[in-house]
Amino acid sequence: MNGAITDDTGMDPATLERFADLVVGFAANVQPDQIVAIGAEPGKEPLARALAASAYRAGAKFVDVAYFDLAVKRARLQHAAEDTLDFVPSWYGERMLELGRQHCARIGLTGPAMPGVLDDLDPARTGRDQLPSLKEGAKVVNDRTTNWTAVPCPTPAWAKLVHPDLPEDEAYAKLVEQILHVCRLDEDDPIAAWKERLDKLTEVRETLNARKLDAVRFAGPGTDLTVGLLPSSKWLSAGDFTTIDGIVHMPNLPSEEVFSCPDPKRTDGVVRSTKPLVVGGSIIRGLEVEFRDGRAVRIDAEDGAEVLRGYAARDAGASRLGEVALVDRDGRIGPLDTVFFDTLLDENAASHIAIGQAYAFTAGDEDRERINSSAIHIDFMIGGPGVDTFAIDRDGNESPLLVDGVWRL
Amino acid sequence: MNGAITDDTGMDPATLERFADLVVGFAANVQPDQIVAIGAEPGKEPLARALAASAYRAGAKFVDVAYFDLAVKRARLQHAAEDTLDFVPSWYGERMLELGRQHCARIGLTGPAMPGVLDDLDPARTGRDQLPSLKEGAKVVNDRTTNWTAVPCPTPAWAKLVHPDLPEDEAYAKLVEQILHVCRLDEDDPIAAWKERLDKLTEVRETLNARKLDAVRFAGPGTDLTVGLLPSSKWLSAGDFTTIDGIVHMPNLPSEEVFSCPDPKRTDGVVRSTKPLVVGGSIIRGLEVEFRDGRAVRIDAEDGAEVLRGYAARDAGASRLGEVALVDRDGRIGPLDTVFFDTLLDENAASHIAIGQAYAFTAGDEDRERINSSAIHIDFMIGGPGVDTFAIDRDGNESPLLVDGVWRL
Repeated sequence: MNGAITDDTGMDPATLERFADLVVGFAANVQPDQIVAIGAEPGKEPLARALAASAYRAGAKFVDVAYFDLAVKRARLQHAAEDTLDFVPSWYGERMLELGRQHCARIGLTGPAMPGVLDDLDPARTGRDQLPSLKEGAKVVNDRTTNWTAVPCPTPAWAKLVHPDLPEDEAYAKLVEQILHVCRLDEDDPIAAWKERLDKLTEVRETLNARKLDAVRFAGPGTDLTVGLLPSSKWLSAGDFTTIDGIVHMPNLPSEEVFSCPDPKRTDGVVRSTKPLVVGGSIIRGLEVEFRDGRAVRIDAEDGAEVLRGYAARDAGASRLGEVALVDRDGRIGPLDTVFFDTLLDENAASHIAIGQAYAFTAGDEDRERINSSAIHIDFMIGGPGVDTFAIDRDGNESPLLVDGVWRL
Repeated sequence: MNGAITDDTGMDPATLERFADLVVGFAANVQPDQIVAIGAEPGKEPLARALAASAYRAGAKFVDVAYFDLAVKRARLQHAAEDTLDFVPSWYGERMLELGRQHCARIGLTGPAMPGVLDDLDPARTGRDQLPSLKEGAKVVNDRTTNWTAVPCPTPAWAKLVHPDLPEDEAYAKLVEQILHVCRLDEDDPIAAWKERLDKLTEVRETLNARKLDAVRFAGPGTDLTVGLLPSSKWLSAGDFTTIDGIVHMPNLPSEEVFSCPDPKRTDGVVRSTKPLVVGGSIIRGLEVEFRDGRAVRIDAEDGAEVLRGYAARDAGASRLGEVALVDRDGRIGPLDTVFFDTLLDENAASHIAIGQAYAFTAGDEDRERINSSAIHIDFMIGGPGVDTFAIDRDGNESPLLVDGVWRL
């Protein structure tokens, strides 16, 4: 039907409500009287609305859904003057800072909303417009003033990208089923299932922290990369997030990773991305990055290299690492052997690194000045079958850490 | 197709671009380097995107499209605590004020986006949530810092409401055709057609201003209402709008009215609305309002009275008049004999009055303290066949002013 907004979420109403309640009540952990900001794109209305209803049922004071339209971004990249492409209206950042000042809840809906919408554009221009990402986002995360989460929102357009060989209806049904599975919504008690998984991740990161590693090394086809850590670097999982008001939240749903803070000056070697990544609407495939003394000195890719080069040129920290994360094979995403073209899901399928801003809480206060600082934070996947991870201790001894996805703790 | 966002605007691409260019280049008169704010709802993406592209082609620095989701408003009205329903996050008003401070262009897309979405809800609750209307909007209009316009955006959902007896495709085609007609887009040179019409309206308002009326009286079935004017009240048309920077713009496209500033203390009598009105997603039908000494002392309606009572109770000025407007039968909307359920179109079909905030520029500086002040501004239609308008001069003499839609100047 022309112009109709679908109410079809690919889920029956009870499942949709259960999904929304898990996101609102557990992952974001919305509190009575909180303002809740939801970030989505046109096409994600059904889940955004279900989340809004769930938040209001939970006592939210207001739900502010902001839809970012990638087709408008496309129009900008096509027609606007080059020197305006990195301009961001003042009220975008102000809103983000207010969400922090007013201790709001934040929910972001991931999944490519309009796959391919920027693909035919000049990647050098595309790399200059980094919306909807905002530099103020990192501050708000690091201030720990908001309880927040990012969750995948299945759409038919996304399903076509992930399962191109299936008829559209089946592709959508399969994506929905996979998302419910990885979110543990196919369990009788999803919250209990998540608590069990987070307990396991807590155990892993406690062991890693006790070993006080100096670096980790990734080795596999096309990859030999050593990522140095800071003396105070801490390993964390999604089970470790609490706001300064004491609100426990799970920043990613799903989450299967333990992650830490690299030393921005001590990453060396070459790394080949094991999955495509979607950045600001562009898909980057076959990425290869070479690091020297912590800095990405070469960025190549089969598609979209210039987009990532644009991001990496944003500021001094944009070409250095802000995160290193390890994912074992007990997670639910890796075994699906599916490329989701969505960082939230793909990064939790495999070990990954991120260029740009570090999470302040992944290092001790004594190293607060040494962690990487940038207006960007872009994860890319470097782990997977054939890529093993090694621990390097402070005496320089190297030992297996994660082999075939199994911990050697 | 499930979840698909239509690109079907009911227009061929060339017509859509011509429409967008008329709105951007003539009505809003977007200037190079301006930020352009577009207000729309989900379902209006195709025109919003065409406007964005047109604005960028015209040299806009940034186009900020804000989609307000009435289904989220519905969830709020269903579930949120009553005493939170008039809460508005600080950044909503701040954004509006920044649009003024930064001398931006503003384009609003009218037309009911989700007809009936709030109809089954408690109207007393509905009247408390007045979004997407913002009290800061009146200040920005009165400061004349932004060049702005409101234009109708046809959608299939709206077409069904306006032409319920036609098959959906035909209803949509008919609404699109009507909108192109009333916007003069069926003329070879729409801008020339508008200039001709605006010249005529200028002639009318010059004569009205020269007559220095004390009041106007509306008389017809169920209506006998006298609206007093201030000593300095000025009649204006859409051809009279210039920002403080000298940017000429047309605040409504289409516009057929001349309008002025009532004395908020001198409206008396009873008025029956001649068309339904849509306020914040609710439809109010069969409205009858009684005024005494300028104040609406009784608001009745067949449907939705409580919604309007909620608005009228918002503040001291919300039950007094801020505008009186006269529409002759040379306009293009009246002859269509169609109820559009959209104030922009319906108010330009017939004479109307508005409760709430007055436009500061419709009175002289000496009466600046006397004009009506409120957080709301709601037009309702009181003219039409059988309703005539009379002029009352400062000696109390009454004479015909607009009879059967023809001026008696």
